[in-house]
Amino acid sequence: MNKLSLILLICISGSAFAQNQDSLIIRKIFNEALLNGKSYQMLDYLSNKIGGRLSGSPEAAAAVEWSKKEMEKLGFDTVYLQECMVPHWVRGEKETASITSKGKNKPVPVCALGGSVGTPEKGITAEVIEAHGLEDLKNIGSKAAGKIVFFNKPLDATKILTFEAYGGAVGQRWAGPIEAAKLGAVGVIVRSMTTSLDDFPHTGTMQKYPEGVVKIPACAISTNGAEQLSRLLKEDPSLKFTYKMNCQTLPDAKSYNVIGEIRGTEKPEEIIVVGGHLDSWDTGDGAHDDGAGCVQSIEVLRLFKSCNLKPKRTIRAVMFMNEENGGRGGDKYAEEAKLKKENHIAAIESDAGGFSPRGFSMEASPEKRAKIKAWAPLFAPYEVYSFDRRGAGADVDALKDQGAVAMELLPDSQRYFDYHHTENDIFKNVNKRELELGAASMAALVYLISQYGL
Amino acid sequence: MNKLSLILLICISGSAFAQNQDSLIIRKIFNEALLNGKSYQMLDYLSNKIGGRLSGSPEAAAAVEWSKKEMEKLGFDTVYLQECMVPHWVRGEKETASITSKGKNKPVPVCALGGSVGTPEKGITAEVIEAHGLEDLKNIGSKAAGKIVFFNKPLDATKILTFEAYGGAVGQRWAGPIEAAKLGAVGVIVRSMTTSLDDFPHTGTMQKYPEGVVKIPACAISTNGAEQLSRLLKEDPSLKFTYKMNCQTLPDAKSYNVIGEIRGTEKPEEIIVVGGHLDSWDTGDGAHDDGAGCVQSIEVLRLFKSCNLKPKRTIRAVMFMNEENGGRGGDKYAEEAKLKKENHIAAIESDAGGFSPRGFSMEASPEKRAKIKAWAPLFAPYEVYSFDRRGAGADVDALKDQGAVAMELLPDSQRYFDYHHTENDIFKNVNKRELELGAASMAALVYLISQYGL
Repeated sequence: MNKLSLILLICISGSAFAQNQDSLIIRKIFNEALLNGKSYQMLDYLSNKIGGRLSGSPEAAAAVEWSKKEMEKLGFDTVYLQECMVPHWVRGEKETASITSKGKNKPVPVCALGGSVGTPEKGITAEVIEAHGLEDLKNIGSKAAGKIVFFNKPLDATKILTFEAYGGAVGQRWAGPIEAAKLGAVGVIVRSMTTSLDDFPHTGTMQKYPEGVVKIPACAISTNGAEQLSRLLKEDPSLKFTYKMNCQTLPDAKSYNVIGEIRGTEKPEEIIVVGGHLDSWDTGDGAHDDGAGCVQSIEVLRLFKSCNLKPKRTIRAVMFMNEENGGRGGDKYAEEAKLKKENHIAAIESDAGGFSPRGFSMEASPEKRAKIKAWAPLFAPYEVYSFDRRGAGADVDALKDQGAVAMELLPDSQRYFDYHHTENDIFKNVNKRELELGAASMAALVYLISQYGL
Repeated sequence: MNKLSLILLICISGSAFAQNQDSLIIRKIFNEALLNGKSYQMLDYLSNKIGGRLSGSPEAAAAVEWSKKEMEKLGFDTVYLQECMVPHWVRGEKETASITSKGKNKPVPVCALGGSVGTPEKGITAEVIEAHGLEDLKNIGSKAAGKIVFFNKPLDATKILTFEAYGGAVGQRWAGPIEAAKLGAVGVIVRSMTTSLDDFPHTGTMQKYPEGVVKIPACAISTNGAEQLSRLLKEDPSLKFTYKMNCQTLPDAKSYNVIGEIRGTEKPEEIIVVGGHLDSWDTGDGAHDDGAGCVQSIEVLRLFKSCNLKPKRTIRAVMFMNEENGGRGGDKYAEEAKLKKENHIAAIESDAGGFSPRGFSMEASPEKRAKIKAWAPLFAPYEVYSFDRRGAGADVDALKDQGAVAMELLPDSQRYFDYHHTENDIFKNVNKRELELGAASMAALVYLISQYGL
């Protein structure tokens, strides 16, 4: 054997040894999560004892308090709050709506879109004009004046990843109200963002109105309600729609990101973030969106401690505030990181539900992606195999401009929009093992990054 | 360019062209399933209008009738019944059980194991001895005499595929009652086969008693009940357990496999089976186990018709009868196939729940597996990626001895044992898209096999 072969052999064996050691540690992480995991128990508390936690609400404040205490109890090296001002929108009484056609009155399930103005106390009653999505509004033009614009473009069910279906339809919710307002519409109804046909209206946020555009009340209607309204409109184009909402926007409120940290033993200045967002909509208890991501992030650090793993680099669990209707927490975190010249090498968000993990999407250079992909065989035993997709969580995306690889946990997406932003996003719709496997997958990736850097 | 290179280039281009055509056809299959799929609607009927369909029951007969008509309505080339005699076990009134300790009486949820004898009318009351699985019974030996043996080995939650956890624990349910009876036990309680801690007892079948062993009543206890019983036994080893079951075995009943077929255009003598089992336990409505597999199998043939695909080889949807407590339908099908010298090239069963599909397991020669694995890139866009596992559905496994590649659809397994064999296995716990994606994945694989053979 020549010298070069010998060196190569040693290198290969060394690397094989490292991979084998890593695979044992990852196995240990998964075992601990599946046998003694705390994510499900934490989620139970957050969902059932605190509940829906819209930015600025008492529940959001309670969630800040609780997650700080939870991380302190777990003995992380540092736990602290990061102040930020957040929008404070309140829904008020439960909304009501009905369709009046040919002397008959049919109630339909609606809810206000986040940030919407309310209706006058007696509600709004007007004729309805249907738009097959934002693009179709151009064809309607001035005919929208004085009417309620009904955006009714369904999600494309043929998309395998439901987030792609969502992406293709959410424009009508995001920008539809403003565009309709510009045309003189008096209100907006948006078909709920789900491929299911059901009776739950799905709330969600809207683009900020530009100066000078008069705000109009915007609501989501359940998909069954949308189908019914569309059918009735064909029979009776001059039917009337009535809805009442008494939501309003209060002055911005003080709130916080909550941060827990285990300091790295060798390169503490290199930081790896795992996070979720602590705020949620108020319709359900925010178990999937994004209680799951929060408890999984705390669990990642807990898994390090309980598996007695000392990370070489610093790892941080961040509960971002206000992802749903402002993104102020994510902005604040990125700003502070820049100000303090912190060196974030990676930031992983879990904000796609507590379902079976299938991989990680990322915003990374080809070299860094290749380095991460080389770890794929270590994840294969856990049915986590997808490392090719682009994209990162909304709260961590900005960190890519500071050199971090910004990532997102990719769980199975089929059920997500059954629950998303509805009263159906509740604890009982989260499966314990699926949640735990997601936390363990994140911990395994954080372990590898903390060990080898990027 | 030399001649060999040219030939190679043509071959490669030809193959690339075929792959591209195939990918378009597979896309068409998935689109049709997701947009116009009928599997969910069929499952609604089977689950909610017919319900749980234990072999020999009126519901099983109704399911035979219904699935035959359904396939006739869909216009398959041939639809026929295949007679087989099945065990006819009936549960009778709902079982009751309680633990009596220190003067207190605590009810616990139990249900009879399939095939068990009932208790005397006033029930059985006896002391309990706990065995940590079948292996542990050897340590107990003669101490089991006159007592109720309580098998309490939990599923190993660290197994990533829950079927492996099930496989590691189910022996105590399968063989436990006989082994305990041989030792003179008067009854058996088995911890339910799930990693969850909940209040649902999970029924399931047992091994056939050998001649000369006196049958004793065997029940499943919910996992919470098992934890409670185990805890109380530590405090009070002489506590008493009382249970009443009036289940019984009636004479074998006549039943049927239901078969629908589309004849191949080029090699009709080569047969590809897709199947599920039509019988289910009686506790729930058998939506996941295995209504899902049945409607997916019918849907595979429907997808061929609605996508206007003429299979080169014959494709058959088979609803097997009596998988749960006898396997008589599967046996009968294999026997008849042998008798008629039918040439089955592949047989795919879906019997692991209507969850998101992740791949296919198979019993195949290395060459045939390699041929199937070469199609993996065509499945990647649908998040179906696993072709390496061994194993096949219980009803099709025997066909491997006749030269078929025996396979099983592999859905995500995390939630399966939350529902399996309980009153919780009901329609509302099946997700429409997950079910449809499974059907489309099977149709895609059947399409490739029908096109290229094996």
